[in-house]
Amino acid sequence: MAEDREVQVHLLPSLVPPGQLTGTVAVVIDVLRATTTIVHALAAGCVAVRPVAEIDEARKLADSMRAGRVLLGGERGGKPVDGFDLGNSPREYTAKRCRNATLVLTTTNGTQALLRAAEAERALVAGFVNFSAVCEQLRQDTRPVHIICAGTDGAIALEDTLLAGAMVDHLCDAGEVCLNDGARLAWDCYETHGRVLLGALEISQGGANLRRLGYDDDIRAAAQIDQFALVPELRRDPLRVEVGAVGIVKSHWQK
Amino acid sequence: MAEDREVQVHLLPSLVPPGQLTGTVAVVIDVLRATTTIVHALAAGCVAVRPVAEIDEARKLADSMRAGRVLLGGERGGKPVDGFDLGNSPREYTAKRCRNATLVLTTTNGTQALLRAAEAERALVAGFVNFSAVCEQLRQDTRPVHIICAGTDGAIALEDTLLAGAMVDHLCDAGEVCLNDGARLAWDCYETHGRVLLGALEISQGGANLRRLGYDDDIRAAAQIDQFALVPELRRDPLRVEVGAVGIVKSHWQK
Repeated sequence: MAEDREVQVHLLPSLVPPGQLTGTVAVVIDVLRATTTIVHALAAGCVAVRPVAEIDEARKLADSMRAGRVLLGGERGGKPVDGFDLGNSPREYTAKRCRNATLVLTTTNGTQALLRAAEAERALVAGFVNFSAVCEQLRQDTRPVHIICAGTDGAIALEDTLLAGAMVDHLCDAGEVCLNDGARLAWDCYETHGRVLLGALEISQGGANLRRLGYDDDIRAAAQIDQFALVPELRRDPLRVEVGAVGIVKSHWQK
Repeated sequence: MAEDREVQVHLLPSLVPPGQLTGTVAVVIDVLRATTTIVHALAAGCVAVRPVAEIDEARKLADSMRAGRVLLGGERGGKPVDGFDLGNSPREYTAKRCRNATLVLTTTNGTQALLRAAEAERALVAGFVNFSAVCEQLRQDTRPVHIICAGTDGAIALEDTLLAGAMVDHLCDAGEVCLNDGARLAWDCYETHGRVLLGALEISQGGANLRRLGYDDDIRAAAQIDQFALVPELRRDPLRVEVGAVGIVKSHWQK
């Protein structure tokens, strides 16, 4: 009998035990808003996204690249950064702005999760906007799955956990799995909130923050299940996110 | 209109933001097994439980106390500690052993959560075994509630989250509340697993560990809802847990 596939959810990047990602496929989730924005940026024509931890580092990297082919994007405290081309709203990333550009992106929570996921053998980037495309990649892959939620400023985030739970639900349907307690909690969250996705995003702490800042549209954008069929994937040397697989056989959203 | 009562769940002691417990009532949960064991020990006649982080510190403290009136208890890796009087199995704490004794207790996860909770104005100790008694104390109190889950070796624990969720459910019935995302996840966990409590404890990572070590009885003991009507409460100078309130008006378990 084949061994059950390991499916683990880590509700924060800091909760991934050291060394645990070796030989695995990781999924990075920051629904509000970094991973949603990355999917939008690549769908709109960006050739790559370079995740960078600090604002100064982002500025330096962008300066070293050819003008007109680089976009500087990101946020601090949810707000755009002075002098940057773009903030962290998915819908700012239009085809006109993005075509053939490299996006240098620095965000409070998502970047940290991406950098942590770089320790995995393969790392995918997920939002609700590309849910089914990511699910299909995870089914084709045979490695253990580690889903890493970005959270918000070190606190667990409902919206990230909900998406992680939808993936757990899908993987449980696909075959025998061995779950950690984080995966079970995420699955529970999906069971309760999956049918009221937009409502859940609105009541979450991250959603409430965005509404306070006037970014209601970003919440609605993040809740568009399967708007895109592409799966961003982490590449190395230099560390960047590019379009990996493209295509969805069918929608796997069950609620 | 009165402000909504804050009810927060922290899925690990390390996830409590610094300074956040000031002026609050905290609840410490380590279902498998420290807080379950503390309730058993006090119900069996211990006059106080002294939580201690390290084994050596526990030995020194016990040595400084009068022989015959002190019990040295605890575990490392789930197993009893060499030379200690008792391990961390609730049912070892019999009336014959406990009457009038002070228990010096050191456990891997529960002790850390208790020490963290000492920053709150008031701190209660909860297991499923005294669920309704704790609920009644929380309803009588008017302070913000912070529920601190011990987890297992730095990982989130299903069984702690489930009990936290049952308390969230109760507090939501009792009046208007303002929840953090951790509280929502815990509530979801209770919604899904509350009706199959023993099963949930058995599939949890902590439960699986205990079964591997042959402690199946401890899991069943931890799942005895409302076996006791007492609420252990943290006291200071020196830091210790003693019986606070006693009594249950009715069972508040809803599943």
